[in-house]
Amino acid sequence: MATINSNFLKLKAGYLFPEIARRVKVYSESVPDKAAQIIRCGIGDVTEPLPSAVLEAMHSGVDEQGDRSTFKGYGPDQGYEFLRQAIVDNQFSNLGISIDEVFVSDGSKCDTGNILDIFGKGNTIAITDPVYPVYVDTNVMAGNTGDADENGAYGGLLYMPCNAENHFVADVPTEKADLIYLCFPNNPTGAVATREQLTEWVNYAKKNDAIILFDAAYEAFIQDPEIPRSIYEIEGAKDCAIEFRSFSKNGGFTGIRCAYTVVPKSLTGHTEDGTPIPIHQLWARRQATKFNGASYPVQKAAAAVFSEKGKQQVAELIEHYMTNAKLLREACEALGLQVFGGENAPYVWVGCPEGVTSWQMFDKMLEEAQVVITPGSGFGSAGEGYFRISAFNSRENVEEVCKRLKQQMS
Amino acid sequence: MATINSNFLKLKAGYLFPEIARRVKVYSESVPDKAAQIIRCGIGDVTEPLPSAVLEAMHSGVDEQGDRSTFKGYGPDQGYEFLRQAIVDNQFSNLGISIDEVFVSDGSKCDTGNILDIFGKGNTIAITDPVYPVYVDTNVMAGNTGDADENGAYGGLLYMPCNAENHFVADVPTEKADLIYLCFPNNPTGAVATREQLTEWVNYAKKNDAIILFDAAYEAFIQDPEIPRSIYEIEGAKDCAIEFRSFSKNGGFTGIRCAYTVVPKSLTGHTEDGTPIPIHQLWARRQATKFNGASYPVQKAAAAVFSEKGKQQVAELIEHYMTNAKLLREACEALGLQVFGGENAPYVWVGCPEGVTSWQMFDKMLEEAQVVITPGSGFGSAGEGYFRISAFNSRENVEEVCKRLKQQMS
Repeated sequence: MATINSNFLKLKAGYLFPEIARRVKVYSESVPDKAAQIIRCGIGDVTEPLPSAVLEAMHSGVDEQGDRSTFKGYGPDQGYEFLRQAIVDNQFSNLGISIDEVFVSDGSKCDTGNILDIFGKGNTIAITDPVYPVYVDTNVMAGNTGDADENGAYGGLLYMPCNAENHFVADVPTEKADLIYLCFPNNPTGAVATREQLTEWVNYAKKNDAIILFDAAYEAFIQDPEIPRSIYEIEGAKDCAIEFRSFSKNGGFTGIRCAYTVVPKSLTGHTEDGTPIPIHQLWARRQATKFNGASYPVQKAAAAVFSEKGKQQVAELIEHYMTNAKLLREACEALGLQVFGGENAPYVWVGCPEGVTSWQMFDKMLEEAQVVITPGSGFGSAGEGYFRISAFNSRENVEEVCKRLKQQMS
Repeated sequence: MATINSNFLKLKAGYLFPEIARRVKVYSESVPDKAAQIIRCGIGDVTEPLPSAVLEAMHSGVDEQGDRSTFKGYGPDQGYEFLRQAIVDNQFSNLGISIDEVFVSDGSKCDTGNILDIFGKGNTIAITDPVYPVYVDTNVMAGNTGDADENGAYGGLLYMPCNAENHFVADVPTEKADLIYLCFPNNPTGAVATREQLTEWVNYAKKNDAIILFDAAYEAFIQDPEIPRSIYEIEGAKDCAIEFRSFSKNGGFTGIRCAYTVVPKSLTGHTEDGTPIPIHQLWARRQATKFNGASYPVQKAAAAVFSEKGKQQVAELIEHYMTNAKLLREACEALGLQVFGGENAPYVWVGCPEGVTSWQMFDKMLEEAQVVITPGSGFGSAGEGYFRISAFNSRENVEEVCKRLKQQMS
C-alpha cells in the first residue's frame, strides 16, 4: 500500500487568494456595471513589459538553439558561468562571494521551498508573522510542524510577531531557533532591516549554530543607501546565511522564470551528533539530482539585466514602481491612515481605520472604490488590522486608485 | 543547532560521468594527437537544433513579453491551458485524460525527483537494475533506503534485475512493493514493454495498492505500433499510475526545459491508517507551493511541437536519431556482439565480448577507436558486461563511429 505524506493533510486550504477571487466575483456579479472599473492592487506581480535589452538577449539565445554550431543541450545544473559571473560582479562585488557559491534556478519560490530537502527533522523553525505563506506551507509539508490552530498558526513553529512597535522587523527571539526565515525588503510589509538589526541576527545565528534563510527578492527596490542590500554585507554572515535572489521583480521575470541562491562554502550545518557538514555540497548535490538547470535563453536574458543598457532599463522600471508606491503612500496618508513600507519596497502596508478588520477593509475598498487590496490577516494573525497595496501596476491605474481613495474620503 | 538531512551522507559520490570524464582526460593528455578524434556517444543529450516551428513560437512568446498589452507575469502553476490542451489532444486522445490532470513543469528529472515529496516514509520502493540513477538517489535523499553496500546497492530498495533472459523488462516481483519505477522505452537499455507486460504491472499495482511511476520520456522513439506509448493504454492504469513525459528528447528541449506529468484524478494513495487520499490534490498543492510554472515563451515553444509543421519536424528529428541507432546496432552486430535496444529507443545496449567488463570495454573503445561509450555497470550491478551507445549525434559522427568499429574488428 503506497502511503502518502500525511503532513499535507495539516495544510489549511489555500485561503487568501482564492477567497479574494471569490469576493471579487460575487461583487462583480451583483454589481455588474462596476465590474469593469475594478483595479487590482492585490497580487505582487509585475505589469510592465520586459526591458528591450532583455528581449534582445533572449531572442539571440533562441536563435542559437536553431543552429547546430551554437545549439546548447543540457547546461550546467548550477547555471552558466557567464550568468553566475555577471551576478557576482554586479550584485556581490567586494563581498567575497565566488561564482561557485551561486546556484541559478527557475525561481525563488522553488528555492525557498526546496532548500528544506537538505535539512534534518526536528529543527526549530523561526518565521515572522505576517509572513510569505510559502515558508510556512513548505515546513508543514516537510513535517516540521504540528497541526494548525483555529487562527491558522501551526504548532511547533516559532512565530516572531512583527508590528508597528518594532516597525515590522522581528526582534531576535529569546528562544533558540535553528532555521530562521528573514525577508528584506519584506513581503508583505515593505519593511527593511538596518545594518544593526541584521548584525544582531547574524550574531544570534552564530551563537546558536542556526542558519538564516535570507530572502532578498526585493533587493532592487532599496532606495536608502544605508540599508544593506545583501546579508553578506554583515560580518560573519557567510558562516550562517543562505541568500535567495530573483530576477522576477527587478527585471520583470515573473513569467520568464529565473532566480539564484547563494550558499557560501564556509556555511556548515551539523549531523545529529554535532559533526559539521558544509551546506554547499548538500545543495549542490540536491540541485544536480533534482534539477536540470534553467532554460538557456532565459539565462541569456537574465545576464542582460546586468548589461549597461539592461541596468539603465531596470533602473527605470524600479523608478516606475517606486513612484507608484510613493503616490499610494501619500494617498493613504492623506486619508489619515497609518502607512508603512513603500519606501524601499514595492508594497505599501497600511493600518485599517480604528476598529476595522482586514477583511472589512477589503470589502469596503472593493465596494466603495472598486480597488482590490490584500487583507493583512491573510499573511498571519499579526497582519490583522492592516492591508497591503501593491505598487506593481501602470501609472494610470495607480493615479486612478489615488483619486478614488481621495473621493472615498470626501 | 541547524541539523542537516543526514540521508545525503549515504549517497555515493556521483561516480559514473565524472569517472568517464577523468578517463577521457587522462587518455587525451597521454595521447594528445588522438584527442581531437574523440567522438562522444556517452551522454543522452540531443545534438540537433530546435525545429523551426518551435523557434518561431518561442520568438513570438518573447515578443509578447515586450508589449504591455500581451505581457504575461506569473502563469498558472500547472501550465497554460493552451499547452495542456495540446498535450491531451495529441498525446492522450481517447485515453480519457483531462487537461486538469496534466501538470507542466521544467523537466522530468525535477518531476521524478520531486514526486517523492507527496509520499510517506516506509514505502517499499521497487526499481530496476540497471536504472536511471535519479530514481535511486532521490529515494536515498528522502530517507527511503539504508546504506549502500560495496556494489553501490542501497539497503531497503527492492531491486528488480533486468537481463538478457527477460529482455531487460523487469518481471513482476513476488514481494510487495508500494512505489514502482518503470521507464519505457528504457534508459539505459532501450528496452520496451509489451501491452501484456504492462498489463501484468498494472494488475500487480492494483492488487497491492501500489503506485507505478511511469517514465515515458522516450515515448516518441517507439516505432512498433504494437508497443503502448502510454501506461494509460492499459485498462486500470488510471487507478494506479503517474506518467512522466518530456519535450527534451522529441523536441530537443534539453536546454530549453519543458516536461509534464499526468496525475489522474482517480489515483489514490493511503494514509497510514488506510484512508484513501487522491494523489492529484497532493501534487497540485506541492506544485502550487514549491513551483511557479514553466517559462511562458518555453510553453509557447512546447505547444508548437504539436503544430502541423512542428509534428513533421519532430518526426524528422526522431527519424534522424533512429537511423543513427540502426547504424550503430548494425555495426555492433557485425562485430559479433549481442545487441539490445535501438529499435524503439535512442539507446543501443550492447553486450561486451566474453570476459570483458564494462569498464574494460570503455577503455578499449576509447583507446582503440577514440569512441566514448557509457559502461553499463554505471547504471547498476546488473549492467555489468554491457555498454550503452547513445544515438544522439550527427550522422557524420555516427558513420565515423561505425567505420572505426569495423576497422577495430578487422
